[in-house]
Amino acid sequence: MSDNHFDAGEIKALVFDIFGTVVDWRSSVIREGQKLSAQTGLQADWPALADAWRAGYQPAMQRARSGEIAWTNIDGLHRVILDELLPRFGLTEMTEAQRDHLNRAWHRLDPWPDSVAGLRRLKKRFVISTLSNGNVALLVNMAKHARLPWDCVLSAEIIQKYKPDPEVYQMAASLLGFAREQVLMVAAHPSDLRGAQRAGLRTAYVPRPLEHGQGGWVEPVGDAVFDVVAADFNALALALGV
Amino acid sequence: MSDNHFDAGEIKALVFDIFGTVVDWRSSVIREGQKLSAQTGLQADWPALADAWRAGYQPAMQRARSGEIAWTNIDGLHRVILDELLPRFGLTEMTEAQRDHLNRAWHRLDPWPDSVAGLRRLKKRFVISTLSNGNVALLVNMAKHARLPWDCVLSAEIIQKYKPDPEVYQMAASLLGFAREQVLMVAAHPSDLRGAQRAGLRTAYVPRPLEHGQGGWVEPVGDAVFDVVAADFNALALALGV
Repeated sequence: MSDNHFDAGEIKALVFDIFGTVVDWRSSVIREGQKLSAQTGLQADWPALADAWRAGYQPAMQRARSGEIAWTNIDGLHRVILDELLPRFGLTEMTEAQRDHLNRAWHRLDPWPDSVAGLRRLKKRFVISTLSNGNVALLVNMAKHARLPWDCVLSAEIIQKYKPDPEVYQMAASLLGFAREQVLMVAAHPSDLRGAQRAGLRTAYVPRPLEHGQGGWVEPVGDAVFDVVAADFNALALALGV
Repeated sequence: MSDNHFDAGEIKALVFDIFGTVVDWRSSVIREGQKLSAQTGLQADWPALADAWRAGYQPAMQRARSGEIAWTNIDGLHRVILDELLPRFGLTEMTEAQRDHLNRAWHRLDPWPDSVAGLRRLKKRFVISTLSNGNVALLVNMAKHARLPWDCVLSAEIIQKYKPDPEVYQMAASLLGFAREQVLMVAAHPSDLRGAQRAGLRTAYVPRPLEHGQGGWVEPVGDAVFDVVAADFNALALALGV
């Protein structure tokens, strides 16, 4: 037990899940769809499209993970899913330029209200990095859009794997130059945190009850136990003594 | 000819060599040595040690590149070179902790006077990233120390190669999501820029005549031709219309 005792003083780096944890993908994608409607007159049920688009994400990654399709980055997977959804949502008239622009909505997601202030605070004490399945270009463009003050942008793309593959978490610790137990994975998703735990990282659970909208689905925690639980990034900073 | 015409409007990202181009490694290593002398009483010819340490860098990378030794990151190579030099400089009494701290002097290098202001200016228009043979942890720690406002930290370490291997430059363009000709490599070293050119990137030469000290060696340009030549990063921003 003492072996597994959590001491915030041992943490050197925080690595963050992005979609849902740092940014509110659902509201942002809906807003981008509404913008497209306003500009083009094309109408669609944007909340339903956002949900269906996101729902296609895990199965698409699973196909890449299993080797069923060649490894493809998230921009590529997002585009495949979008093209499959357009007929169902009456959007087959969208031009190539409009599809590409909408696909890049994932580069322009807005942060949760506490994200930027919390990250700025955490950055004073820790190395803070992304650790996302989102590709590097997406994460870099998002950081510029949302003013996310990362010290480093790490992505599963770098090793052509996807979380929760243990190699992704281990790659982050290794590239940041820390032991795995000196790295704290921050996520709103228990499955991601369990992956980090299996790989030897420390874990912080920051639930985001609005990720799937008001009254929307929340991934169950089950019997998982995490090192830190915090309501948002400011509470996380407090919990870590910053 | 028109095919090769340089248009700053086509550039999306700037990737920077670090040692010598962004930071003044020589003065910084000498200063760290002098600090060690002040704290411990150990004396050495620190300028000569800094020069010898740096001179060991290319041959060490060549051994890793050729497969003579297993691929090792720069922290590891720096440490091997340092340990080989200590007897010559009368420093065999250094403890393990002192050696490790001195080896990490490369994480604490100071920027040239124009670097931070120039990068801040360039960041407004372009994606700015490191593209160094230095390992990720070194670059992240250096950015925190020197307040270098990178959008992304890319290192040859990610693909376990070293510049001027073309794959390193191509990896940067690919991860940043741009065509190679949309990426401008910025360096004080013509050999690095020629490597970038061979890989299809655009090039900006920023000479740093004080890299090897007052009156010190400067790598000859020879008959190389680069897309931009600028005296410092502020002049580079001006040349790129920022």
